[in-house]
Amino acid sequence: MKLITAVLAPERLDAVAAALAEVEVYRMTVTECRGVQPSGPDGRSLSITKSKLEVAVNENFVRPTIEAIASVGHGFEGDGGAKTEQEAEERAAEEAAGFGKIFITELLDVVRIRTGERGPDAI
Amino acid sequence: MKLITAVLAPERLDAVAAALAEVEVYRMTVTECRGVQPSGPDGRSLSITKSKLEVAVNENFVRPTIEAIASVGHGFEGDGGAKTEQEAEERAAEEAAGFGKIFITELLDVVRIRTGERGPDAI
Amino acid sequence: MKLITAVLAPERLDAVAAALAEVEVYRMTVTECRGVQPSGPDGRSLSITKSKLEVAVNENFVRPTIEAIASVGHGFEGDGGAKTEQEAEERAAEEAAGFGKIFITELLDVVRIRTGERGPDAI
Repeated sequence: MKLITAVLAPERLDAVAAALAEVEVYRMTVTECRGVQPSGPDGRSLSITKSKLEVAVNENFVRPTIEAIASVGHGFEGDGGAKTEQEAEERAAEEAAGFGKIFITELLDVVRIRTGERGPDAI
Repeated sequence: MKLITAVLAPERLDAVAAALAEVEVYRMTVTECRGVQPSGPDGRSLSITKSKLEVAVNENFVRPTIEAIASVGHGFEGDGGAKTEQEAEERAAEEAAGFGKIFITELLDVVRIRTGERGPDAI
Repeated sequence: MKLITAVLAPERLDAVAAALAEVEVYRMTVTECRGVQPSGPDGRSLSITKSKLEVAVNENFVRPTIEAIASVGHGFEGDGGAKTEQEAEERAAEEAAGFGKIFITELLDVVRIRTGERGPDAI
Protein backbone atom coordinates (compact mmCIF):
# COMPACT_ATOMS: atom_id res chain seq x y z
CA MET A 1 0.00 0.00 0.00
CA LYS A 2 1.16 3.51 -0.73
CA LEU A 3 0.29 7.01 0.41
CA ILE A 4 0.17 9.37 -2.55
CA THR A 5 0.50 13.01 -1.47
CA ALA A 6 0.09 15.91 -3.90
CA VAL A 7 0.70 19.56 -3.07
CA LEU A 8 -1.09 21.74 -5.58
CA ALA A 9 -3.11 24.90 -6.17
CA PRO A 10 -6.49 24.76 -4.34
CA GLU A 11 -8.42 25.56 -7.55
CA ARG A 12 -7.21 22.29 -9.07
CA LEU A 13 -8.90 20.15 -6.42
CA ASP A 14 -12.25 19.60 -8.11
CA ALA A 15 -10.58 18.62 -11.38
CA VAL A 16 -8.22 16.25 -9.56
CA ALA A 17 -11.10 14.65 -7.63
CA ALA A 18 -12.93 14.12 -10.93
CA ALA A 19 -9.83 12.63 -12.59
CA LEU A 20 -9.33 10.30 -9.61
CA ALA A 21 -12.98 9.19 -9.74
CA GLU A 22 -12.40 8.11 -13.35
CA VAL A 23 -9.75 5.65 -12.14
CA GLU A 24 -12.06 4.58 -9.28
CA VAL A 25 -10.28 6.42 -6.49
CA TYR A 26 -13.00 8.08 -4.39
CA ARG A 27 -11.40 8.73 -1.02
CA MET A 28 -8.97 11.49 -0.23
CA THR A 29 -7.99 13.87 2.53
CA VAL A 30 -7.30 17.54 1.83
CA THR A 31 -5.35 19.89 4.09
CA GLU A 32 -4.83 23.58 3.50
CA CYS A 33 -1.17 24.52 3.69
CA ARG A 34 1.32 27.02 2.32
CA GLY A 35 4.24 26.76 -0.04
CA VAL A 36 6.97 28.85 1.59
CA GLN A 37 10.18 30.23 0.16
CA PRO A 38 12.70 32.69 1.57
CA SER A 39 12.45 36.09 -0.09
CA GLY A 40 15.92 37.43 0.37
CA PRO A 41 18.35 39.16 2.72
CA ASP A 42 15.68 40.63 5.03
CA GLY A 43 14.86 37.11 6.20
CA ARG A 44 11.12 37.39 5.55
CA SER A 45 9.53 34.50 3.71
CA LEU A 46 6.85 34.46 1.00
CA SER A 47 4.00 31.99 1.08
CA ILE A 48 1.39 30.79 -1.40
CA THR A 49 -1.78 28.95 -0.37
CA LYS A 50 -1.71 25.29 -1.36
CA SER A 51 -3.82 22.20 -0.87
CA LYS A 52 -2.24 18.97 0.22
CA LEU A 53 -4.14 16.03 -1.19
CA GLU A 54 -3.57 12.60 0.34
CA VAL A 55 -4.77 9.30 -1.11
CA ALA A 56 -4.09 5.85 0.34
CA VAL A 57 -4.05 3.20 -2.38
CA ASN A 58 -3.31 -0.44 -2.99
CA GLU A 59 -0.37 -1.27 -5.27
CA ASN A 60 -2.41 -1.64 -8.45
CA PHE A 61 -3.82 1.87 -7.99
CA VAL A 62 -0.48 3.63 -7.54
CA ARG A 63 0.19 4.30 -11.21
CA PRO A 64 -3.38 5.29 -12.20
CA THR A 65 -3.56 7.63 -9.18
CA ILE A 66 -0.31 9.39 -10.02
CA GLU A 67 -1.25 9.69 -13.69
CA ALA A 68 -4.70 11.06 -12.85
CA ILE A 69 -3.29 13.78 -10.57
CA ALA A 70 -0.49 14.64 -12.98
CA SER A 71 -2.83 14.81 -15.99
CA VAL A 72 -4.79 17.65 -14.37
CA GLY A 73 -1.61 19.49 -13.45
CA HIS A 74 -0.48 19.37 -17.05
CA GLY A 75 -3.59 21.31 -18.02
CA PHE A 76 -2.31 24.29 -16.06
CA GLU A 77 0.46 25.64 -18.28
CA GLY A 78 1.40 29.17 -19.24
CA ASP A 79 -0.30 31.52 -16.83
CA GLY A 80 -1.99 28.62 -15.07
CA GLY A 81 -5.46 30.08 -15.61
CA ALA A 82 -4.59 33.16 -13.57
CA LYS A 83 -7.43 35.70 -13.51
CA THR A 84 -5.37 38.74 -12.50
CA GLU A 85 -1.89 40.07 -13.13
CA GLN A 86 -1.01 39.51 -9.48
CA GLU A 87 -2.24 35.93 -9.59
CA ALA A 88 -0.20 35.31 -12.73
CA GLU A 89 2.91 36.60 -11.00
CA GLU A 90 2.24 34.44 -7.97
CA ARG A 91 1.74 31.44 -10.23
CA ALA A 92 5.02 32.16 -12.01
CA ALA A 93 6.79 32.44 -8.66
CA GLU A 94 5.18 29.19 -7.64
CA GLU A 95 6.43 27.36 -10.72
CA ALA A 96 9.88 28.82 -10.24
CA ALA A 97 9.91 27.50 -6.70
CA GLY A 98 9.08 24.03 -7.94
CA PHE A 99 5.83 23.53 -6.03
CA GLY A 100 3.18 21.30 -7.51
CA LYS A 101 4.53 17.84 -6.74
CA ILE A 102 3.49 14.31 -5.93
CA PHE A 103 5.21 12.35 -3.16
CA ILE A 104 4.97 8.57 -2.77
CA THR A 105 5.55 6.90 0.60
CA GLU A 106 5.11 3.37 1.91
CA LEU A 107 2.12 2.48 4.09
CA LEU A 108 3.05 -0.36 6.44
CA ASP A 109 -0.54 -0.92 7.50
CA VAL A 110 -4.01 0.61 7.38
CA VAL A 111 -6.87 0.12 9.86
CA ARG A 112 -10.51 0.96 9.14
CA ILE A 113 -11.56 2.14 12.58
CA ARG A 114 -15.26 1.29 12.41
CA THR A 115 -14.80 -2.35 11.32
CA GLY A 116 -11.29 -3.14 12.51
CA GLU A 117 -10.32 -4.33 9.02
CA ARG A 118 -6.58 -4.08 8.31
CA GLY A 119 -4.25 -4.02 5.33
CA PRO A 120 -5.36 -3.79 1.68
CA ASP A 121 -9.00 -4.56 2.62
CA ALA A 122 -9.06 -1.41 4.77
CA ILE A 123 -8.03 0.92 1.92
CA MET B 1 9.80 3.92 15.37
CA LYS B 2 6.47 4.44 13.67
CA LEU B 3 4.23 7.35 12.81
CA ILE B 4 0.61 6.51 13.58
CA THR B 5 -1.80 8.79 11.70
CA ALA B 6 -5.54 8.72 12.28
CA VAL B 7 -8.12 10.68 10.28
CA LEU B 8 -11.32 10.97 12.28
CA ALA B 9 -14.24 13.19 13.29
CA PRO B 10 -13.06 16.24 15.32
CA GLU B 11 -15.50 15.48 18.13
CA ARG B 12 -13.66 12.21 18.83
CA LEU B 13 -10.38 13.96 19.66
CA ASP B 14 -10.84 14.38 23.41
CA ALA B 15 -11.87 10.75 23.82
CA VAL B 16 -8.92 9.58 21.73
CA ALA B 17 -6.48 11.74 23.72
CA ALA B 18 -7.88 10.24 26.94
CA ALA B 19 -7.61 6.68 25.56
CA LEU B 20 -4.02 7.35 24.48
CA ALA B 21 -3.13 8.74 27.91
CA GLU B 22 -4.27 5.44 29.43
CA VAL B 23 -1.58 3.64 27.40
CA GLU B 24 0.93 6.37 28.35
CA VAL B 25 0.95 8.17 25.00
CA TYR B 26 0.80 11.89 25.81
CA ARG B 27 2.15 13.63 22.71
CA MET B 28 0.27 14.15 19.50
CA THR B 29 -0.15 16.63 16.68
CA VAL B 30 -3.59 17.50 15.32
CA THR B 31 -4.29 19.09 11.93
CA GLU B 32 -7.69 20.15 10.68
CA CYS B 33 -8.38 18.69 7.24
CA ARG B 34 -11.27 17.57 5.05
CA GLY B 35 -12.41 14.22 3.79
CA VAL B 36 -13.25 14.82 0.12
CA GLN B 37 -15.25 12.72 -2.30
CA PRO B 38 -16.52 13.48 -5.80
CA SER B 39 -20.28 14.08 -5.85
CA GLY B 40 -21.15 13.09 -9.37
CA PRO B 41 -21.30 14.20 -12.98
CA ASP B 42 -21.14 17.95 -12.29
CA GLY B 43 -17.58 17.51 -11.05
CA ARG B 44 -18.14 19.29 -7.73
CA SER B 45 -16.79 17.53 -4.68
CA LEU B 46 -18.23 17.14 -1.17
CA SER B 47 -16.12 17.62 1.90
CA ILE B 48 -16.46 16.77 5.58
CA THR B 49 -14.33 18.36 8.31
CA LYS B 50 -11.86 15.91 9.80
CA SER B 51 -9.01 15.94 12.27
CA LYS B 52 -5.73 14.30 11.41
CA LEU B 53 -4.07 12.97 14.54
CA GLU B 54 -0.38 12.09 14.39
CA VAL B 55 1.54 10.19 17.05
CA ALA B 56 5.20 9.19 16.85
CA VAL B 57 5.87 6.04 18.88
CA ASN B 58 8.53 3.48 19.65
CA GLU B 59 7.91 -0.10 18.49
CA ASN B 60 6.44 -1.33 21.79
CA PHE B 61 3.81 1.43 21.68
CA VAL B 62 2.57 0.72 18.15
CA ARG B 63 -0.05 -1.84 19.08
CA PRO B 64 -1.40 -0.09 22.22
CA THR B 65 -1.63 3.20 20.27
CA ILE B 66 -3.59 1.65 17.41
CA GLU B 67 -5.88 -0.21 19.79
CA ALA B 68 -6.51 2.93 21.87
CA ILE B 69 -7.50 4.99 18.82
CA ALA B 70 -9.60 2.20 17.34
CA SER B 71 -11.40 1.51 20.62
CA VAL B 72 -12.83 5.05 20.64
CA GLY B 73 -13.85 4.82 17.01
CA HIS B 74 -15.80 1.66 17.75
CA GLY B 75 -17.94 3.62 20.18
CA PHE B 76 -19.36 5.63 17.29
CA GLU B 77 -21.73 3.19 15.68
CA GLY B 78 -25.22 3.61 14.30
CA ASP B 79 -25.83 7.32 13.89
CA GLY B 80 -22.39 8.07 15.29
CA GLY B 81 -23.81 10.20 18.09
CA ALA B 82 -25.21 12.70 15.61
CA LYS B 83 -27.22 15.47 17.26
CA THR B 84 -29.18 16.59 14.20
CA GLU B 85 -30.70 14.99 11.13
CA GLN B 86 -28.16 16.77 8.94
CA GLU B 87 -25.27 15.57 11.07
CA ALA B 88 -26.58 12.02 10.93
CA GLU B 89 -26.71 12.23 7.13
CA GLU B 90 -23.19 13.60 6.98
CA ARG B 91 -22.02 10.83 9.27
CA ALA B 92 -23.65 8.22 7.08
CA ALA B 93 -22.00 9.73 4.00
CA GLU B 94 -18.71 9.67 5.86
CA GLU B 95 -19.00 5.99 6.71
CA ALA B 96 -20.00 5.20 3.13
CA ALA B 97 -16.88 6.97 1.93
CA GLY B 98 -14.74 4.84 4.23
CA PHE B 99 -13.17 7.68 6.22
CA GLY B 100 -12.08 7.08 9.77
CA LYS B 101 -8.79 5.24 9.32
CA ILE B 102 -5.41 4.70 10.88
CA PHE B 103 -2.25 4.72 8.76
CA ILE B 104 1.09 3.32 9.91
CA THR B 105 4.37 4.53 8.38
CA GLU B 106 8.04 4.00 9.21
CA LEU B 107 10.02 6.73 10.96
CA LEU B 108 13.69 6.48 9.96
CA ASP B 109 14.80 8.92 12.63
CA VAL B 110 13.50 11.49 15.11
CA VAL B 111 15.35 14.53 16.50
CA ARG B 112 14.29 16.44 19.61
CA ILE B 113 15.27 19.94 18.56
CA ARG B 114 15.93 21.44 22.00
CA THR B 115 18.32 18.73 23.20
CA GLY B 116 19.61 17.24 19.95
CA GLU B 117 18.60 13.75 21.10
CA ARG B 118 17.95 11.31 18.24
CA GLY B 119 16.20 8.00 17.68
CA PRO B 120 13.95 6.24 20.21
CA ASP B 121 15.17 8.52 23.02
CA ALA B 122 13.78 11.53 21.14
CA ILE B 123 10.25 10.11 20.90
CA MET C 1 15.09 10.91 -1.09
CA LYS C 2 13.75 11.83 2.31
CA LEU C 3 10.88 13.85 3.70
CA ILE C 4 12.05 15.98 6.64
CA THR C 5 9.14 17.10 8.82
CA ALA C 6 9.57 19.54 11.69
CA VAL C 7 6.86 20.52 14.16
CA LEU C 8 7.78 23.79 15.81
CA ALA C 9 6.56 27.14 17.14
CA PRO C 10 5.14 29.32 14.31
CA GLU C 11 7.39 32.25 15.27
CA ARG C 12 10.45 30.17 14.38
CA LEU C 13 9.44 29.76 10.74
CA ASP C 14 11.21 32.79 9.26
CA ALA C 15 14.44 31.92 11.02
CA VAL C 16 14.20 28.30 9.88
CA ALA C 17 13.51 29.33 6.28
CA ALA C 18 16.57 31.60 6.41
CA ALA C 19 18.74 28.83 7.88
CA LEU C 20 17.54 26.41 5.19
CA ALA C 21 18.30 28.93 2.44
CA GLU C 22 21.89 29.03 3.69
CA VAL C 23 22.22 25.31 2.92
CA GLU C 24 20.45 25.86 -0.43
CA VAL C 25 17.09 24.41 0.56
CA TYR C 26 14.46 26.80 -0.81
CA ARG C 27 11.26 24.77 -1.02
CA MET C 28 9.06 23.83 1.87
CA THR C 29 5.44 23.32 2.79
CA VAL C 30 3.99 24.70 6.02
CA THR C 31 0.77 23.52 7.68
CA GLU C 32 -0.76 25.04 10.78
CA CYS C 33 -1.48 22.37 13.39
CA ARG C 34 -1.75 21.92 17.14
CA GLY C 35 0.31 20.10 19.69
CA VAL C 36 -2.24 18.34 21.89
CA GLN C 37 -1.86 16.78 25.32
CA PRO C 38 -4.45 15.44 27.76
CA SER C 39 -4.95 17.76 30.73
CA GLY C 40 -6.14 15.34 33.36
CA PRO C 41 -9.10 13.45 34.77
CA ASP C 42 -11.81 15.64 33.18
CA GLY C 43 -10.76 14.30 29.78
CA ARG C 44 -10.34 17.74 28.18
CA SER C 45 -7.17 18.26 26.20
CA LEU C 46 -4.87 21.29 25.94
CA SER C 47 -3.52 22.46 22.61
CA ILE C 48 -0.74 24.78 21.48
CA THR C 49 -0.54 26.22 17.96
CA LYS C 50 2.31 24.72 15.95
CA SER C 51 3.64 24.86 12.43
CA LYS C 52 4.47 21.69 10.57
CA LEU C 53 7.30 22.29 8.14
CA GLU C 54 7.90 19.72 5.39
CA VAL C 55 10.96 19.60 3.13
CA ALA C 56 11.63 16.96 0.48
CA VAL C 57 15.37 16.49 -0.08
CA ASN C 58 17.88 14.33 -1.87
CA GLU C 59 20.21 12.19 0.25
CA ASN C 60 23.10 14.67 0.34
CA PHE C 61 20.78 17.35 1.73
CA VAL C 62 19.39 15.28 4.62
CA ARG C 63 22.07 16.15 7.16
CA PRO C 64 22.40 19.88 6.29
CA THR C 65 18.59 20.24 6.40
CA ILE C 66 18.29 18.63 9.82
CA GLU C 67 21.18 20.64 11.20
CA ALA C 68 19.77 23.90 9.82
CA ILE C 69 16.37 23.33 11.42
CA ALA C 70 17.86 22.16 14.70
CA SER C 71 20.30 25.08 14.89
CA VAL C 72 17.40 27.56 14.99
CA GLY C 73 15.58 25.51 17.62
CA HIS C 74 18.63 25.61 19.84
CA GLY C 75 18.40 29.38 19.94
CA PHE C 76 15.15 29.09 21.88
CA GLU C 77 16.32 28.09 25.34
CA GLY C 78 15.28 29.23 28.79
CA ASP C 79 11.93 31.00 28.49
CA GLY C 80 11.98 30.52 24.70
CA GLY C 81 11.75 34.26 24.07
CA ALA C 82 8.37 34.45 25.78
CA LYS C 83 7.03 38.01 26.02
CA THR C 84 4.50 37.42 28.79
CA GLU C 85 4.20 35.27 31.89
CA GLN C 86 1.41 33.27 30.23
CA GLU C 87 3.48 32.69 27.11
CA ALA C 88 6.43 31.53 29.24
CA GLU C 89 4.18 29.04 31.00
CA GLU C 90 2.83 27.78 27.71
CA ARG C 91 6.36 27.46 26.39
CA ALA C 92 7.41 25.51 29.48
CA ALA C 93 4.40 23.21 29.08
CA GLU C 94 5.34 22.77 25.45
CA GLU C 95 8.92 21.77 26.28
CA ALA C 96 7.68 19.41 28.97
CA ALA C 97 5.40 17.76 26.45
CA GLY C 98 8.36 17.16 24.16
CA PHE C 99 7.10 19.09 21.15
CA GLY C 100 9.61 20.65 18.79
CA LYS C 101 10.83 17.65 16.82
CA ILE C 102 12.11 16.59 13.43
CA PHE C 103 10.87 13.40 11.78
CA ILE C 104 12.63 11.70 8.86
CA THR C 105 10.72 9.41 6.48
CA GLU C 106 11.59 7.71 3.20
CA LEU C 107 10.28 9.10 -0.08
CA LEU C 108 9.88 6.26 -2.59
CA ASP C 109 9.34 8.64 -5.50
CA VAL C 110 8.63 12.27 -6.34
CA VAL C 111 6.87 13.65 -9.43
CA ARG C 112 7.05 17.28 -10.56
CA ILE C 113 3.55 17.66 -11.93
CA ARG C 114 4.22 20.38 -14.50
CA THR C 115 7.12 18.61 -16.25
CA GLY C 116 6.51 14.97 -15.37
CA GLU C 117 10.07 14.65 -14.02
CA ARG C 118 10.49 11.90 -11.44
CA GLY C 119 12.92 10.89 -8.71
CA PRO C 120 15.83 13.04 -7.47
CA ASP C 121 15.52 15.39 -10.48
CA ALA C 122 11.98 16.29 -9.34
CA ILE C 123 13.09 17.40 -5.85
